[in-house]
Amino acid sequence: MGEHKLNLSTLVFSVAVIIVVSHSARSLALKHSPRFLRKSAATGTDFAPPQFYYETRYFQQRLDHFSFSDLPTFPQRYLISTEHWVGPQRLGPIFFYCGNEGDIEWFAQNTGFVWEIAPRFGAMVVFPEHRYYGESTPFGSAKEAYKDATTLSYLTAEQALADFSVLITDLKQNFSANDCPVVLFGGSYGGMLAAWMRLKYPHIAVGALASSAPILQFEDIVPPETFYNIVSNSFKRESFTCFNYIKQSWNEITSTGQTYNGLERLTKTFNLCQKLKSTGDLYDWLDSAYSYLAMVNYPYPSDFLMTLPGHPIREVCKRIDGAPAGTNILERIYEGVNVYYNYTGKEKCFELDDDPHGMSGWDWQACTEMVMPMSSNQDSSMFPPYEYNYTSVKEECWNDFGVKPRPKWITTEFGGHDIHTTLKKFGSNIIFSNGLLDPWSGGSVLQNISESVVSLVTEEGAHHIDLRPSTQNDPRWLVEQRETEIKLIEGWISDYHQKNKAVSDM
Amino acid sequence: MGEHKLNLSTLVFSVAVIIVVSHSARSLALKHSPRFLRKSAATGTDFAPPQFYYETRYFQQRLDHFSFSDLPTFPQRYLISTEHWVGPQRLGPIFFYCGNEGDIEWFAQNTGFVWEIAPRFGAMVVFPEHRYYGESTPFGSAKEAYKDATTLSYLTAEQALADFSVLITDLKQNFSANDCPVVLFGGSYGGMLAAWMRLKYPHIAVGALASSAPILQFEDIVPPETFYNIVSNSFKRESFTCFNYIKQSWNEITSTGQTYNGLERLTKTFNLCQKLKSTGDLYDWLDSAYSYLAMVNYPYPSDFLMTLPGHPIREVCKRIDGAPAGTNILERIYEGVNVYYNYTGKEKCFELDDDPHGMSGWDWQACTEMVMPMSSNQDSSMFPPYEYNYTSVKEECWNDFGVKPRPKWITTEFGGHDIHTTLKKFGSNIIFSNGLLDPWSGGSVLQNISESVVSLVTEEGAHHIDLRPSTQNDPRWLVEQRETEIKLIEGWISDYHQKNKAVSDM
Repeated sequence: MGEHKLNLSTLVFSVAVIIVVSHSARSLALKHSPRFLRKSAATGTDFAPPQFYYETRYFQQRLDHFSFSDLPTFPQRYLISTEHWVGPQRLGPIFFYCGNEGDIEWFAQNTGFVWEIAPRFGAMVVFPEHRYYGESTPFGSAKEAYKDATTLSYLTAEQALADFSVLITDLKQNFSANDCPVVLFGGSYGGMLAAWMRLKYPHIAVGALASSAPILQFEDIVPPETFYNIVSNSFKRESFTCFNYIKQSWNEITSTGQTYNGLERLTKTFNLCQKLKSTGDLYDWLDSAYSYLAMVNYPYPSDFLMTLPGHPIREVCKRIDGAPAGTNILERIYEGVNVYYNYTGKEKCFELDDDPHGMSGWDWQACTEMVMPMSSNQDSSMFPPYEYNYTSVKEECWNDFGVKPRPKWITTEFGGHDIHTTLKKFGSNIIFSNGLLDPWSGGSVLQNISESVVSLVTEEGAHHIDLRPSTQNDPRWLVEQRETEIKLIEGWISDYHQKNKAVSDM
Repeated sequence: MGEHKLNLSTLVFSVAVIIVVSHSARSLALKHSPRFLRKSAATGTDFAPPQFYYETRYFQQRLDHFSFSDLPTFPQRYLISTEHWVGPQRLGPIFFYCGNEGDIEWFAQNTGFVWEIAPRFGAMVVFPEHRYYGESTPFGSAKEAYKDATTLSYLTAEQALADFSVLITDLKQNFSANDCPVVLFGGSYGGMLAAWMRLKYPHIAVGALASSAPILQFEDIVPPETFYNIVSNSFKRESFTCFNYIKQSWNEITSTGQTYNGLERLTKTFNLCQKLKSTGDLYDWLDSAYSYLAMVNYPYPSDFLMTLPGHPIREVCKRIDGAPAGTNILERIYEGVNVYYNYTGKEKCFELDDDPHGMSGWDWQACTEMVMPMSSNQDSSMFPPYEYNYTSVKEECWNDFGVKPRPKWITTEFGGHDIHTTLKKFGSNIIFSNGLLDPWSGGSVLQNISESVVSLVTEEGAHHIDLRPSTQNDPRWLVEQRETEIKLIEGWISDYHQKNKAVSDM
């Protein structure tokens, strides 16, 4: 009989939890640590053409900033626009987006806020790509870079921060812009990088907008069930029956899977292109849908990850709840997830693994530094109950990559256990923006820390909605949130100019 | 004719400047960047037995904290005393000395201040050794660790800081001392590490006493002639004629060296054990003496580096100036440097190179990160004029180690160009203590930055005299300086306790 390994989620900006379900009693074991981006998201080149004008350039980076090993350099791609920059004489600011785990063009396209506000600030805009993603791969190709633990070894957050600092220093010199203030932006993991930049490289920038940045999702800083509770609540708030249908569906899937021809029936019910190999693969496919839906639960239609209606969870629950009487649970679930996987109606059938052969950089990061404990609570979560088990994470990481995670490293390097004190004493000019619908908000900073380290929390916001391009459908609170952010950034720059003037007047 | 390469200095806590003198016109070229410690200092085991009680332990450290390369770990030695520690219940502080470039037992012995104040604070005392020094060598032995650029590669300040942070985190856990405040201490390069720890790892400790820490001795932050000007002034303030004898002596050495049998005559005049190979070796030997004398120009007898009288430069100049009429310049110089090299009178003759076969870790650090520009100014310095030339530094480093320096890295990583702003906004609880007689004081922070980032400057102090064991001859200003330091440290700890209490009362 043995155990099946079930992919419970592969999420865009979210968690990839791979769960082991035994046939006798369901015992769940987390395989991978969380993932923010679905494997195939932000890694292809088939997304829409850029809406914003920029040049693409490359900067030769050291592979290891913290040793003097004789390693090959690699070209870090960055997108740059000086179209609206008022230049060094007028101390035009530099808006610098901390690239996260994907193709930087995709992030540039989905971070309209930075492009839209640049003209009013007279700002240069720079979108550097994170090492090992997109075109910024060491060793000549993604294939070589992702070959094994030896080549992946330098894919760490600290190296990425050093890349940013070296690039900024070089750009400033090349543009004679040494005195131009740099403002950092980042969403999700990129938001974590932006916030950490403020703590680790305070001399490099004047402030950071860290949107949906779960810098506290480590060790025991926040309860491990937080993420799935928030996803679950996003469904519960739309409809308690919907929440319950989903909560019941897992047992239904497991028991169906155990019957004769059960996997074939599930394959048919969920309209899968290939025959289902294990119920776990279906778990994973559904978990992905729910968790990503919670992240992109925007109040207007979007096609950030998938083409979706506004308030997509409302739409999912409408379909789950609204199916004709007599529809069984699994058919209802299928109707629901169709909103996520097939809102355009173009899909003929569904492939469960969206990137069967690719290796995910984030999986490596989750197996090394980004060890984010996640549980699913029997009472409050609509997902199968699961208790976080570091031992199995460690084993899986060893099997997958031949690497041992360092679960305490992030808090040793960046702090976290008493982050309020650290941010209060040592941080300044950081906006932690979060929408409470976003499951990652639970691991983020949700309180004002000081006069200049502030938290902007929106009840109805989802994953870094503030960074997205503005739309005609933006609700009032979103317009206001962005106005507040602009005012805060203006404040940082004006403080900087005043200090600068005071120094040059001396 | 070609050029001779002259070792102008090999200094304990000071500069190693290797100078190229052409026979026609003296053109000087800096070879190595500065060195704080004489090669043989703090690397042997022949110094006095420890005065303070401690245990010696070892902690397995990663060789590269910032990558996941499969490298061997290495045992980091640390000395630890819990003799006076009041324990975790009473939140007994942890006094943590940031080990610098040498054997940690030597530093422990020469940092009496920490040991002496520990009982009154009920503090644990920890002296961790800096990687690649003393017994804390990777790859099984110093020979292997120092083999080439590949093995030396991980000898960097950032790795050392990460070692400290990981060790502190581990110690806190093992002693159930998570809430115990850590106070950092460090002198010279160790002081730089202590100060940088406050900027890079603010969550790890509550404050740092950074004594004689020249964190500004990089790029063009301070004028490159600062160091040698301060050494020169230390001689000039004792006697202008003495200063002038020394200033004239270099030409005298060069011209003597060029004559028939000149090197033999110099060998005899300076009582050297082996025949002088080039005048440059003599330059180096003399430069070392002067620069180290300036650093250890303490007001009481000491045997920190050498057995010396109190006010040793006064004594040197007394001998140079006081030689009988008719004594020539070089004989005067010889009489003078005898104070440094042979105050005990035990030396029969002098070896110029104190560590002919050893490799110096600091030379590696100076050839990679610690690129500290140094010049000697024609007018104000008593040393041969020399203009800093990065190109030759680069060439020499390539020849010596096969490594390319990164002269801008330290300021990119730690800041420096606008350190006042950085320290004011992001630093707290740092004491920068400096004695103005110390040539390294010129590259240090000499002004109060904020209420909690303060500068303690003593007119008559030399290189981190405040960290030394107290003596019965301590002048009033030194006693007062240490009292001020103790009060400031008490303040950090009491602030920490208050904050801690406020949190636990909530």
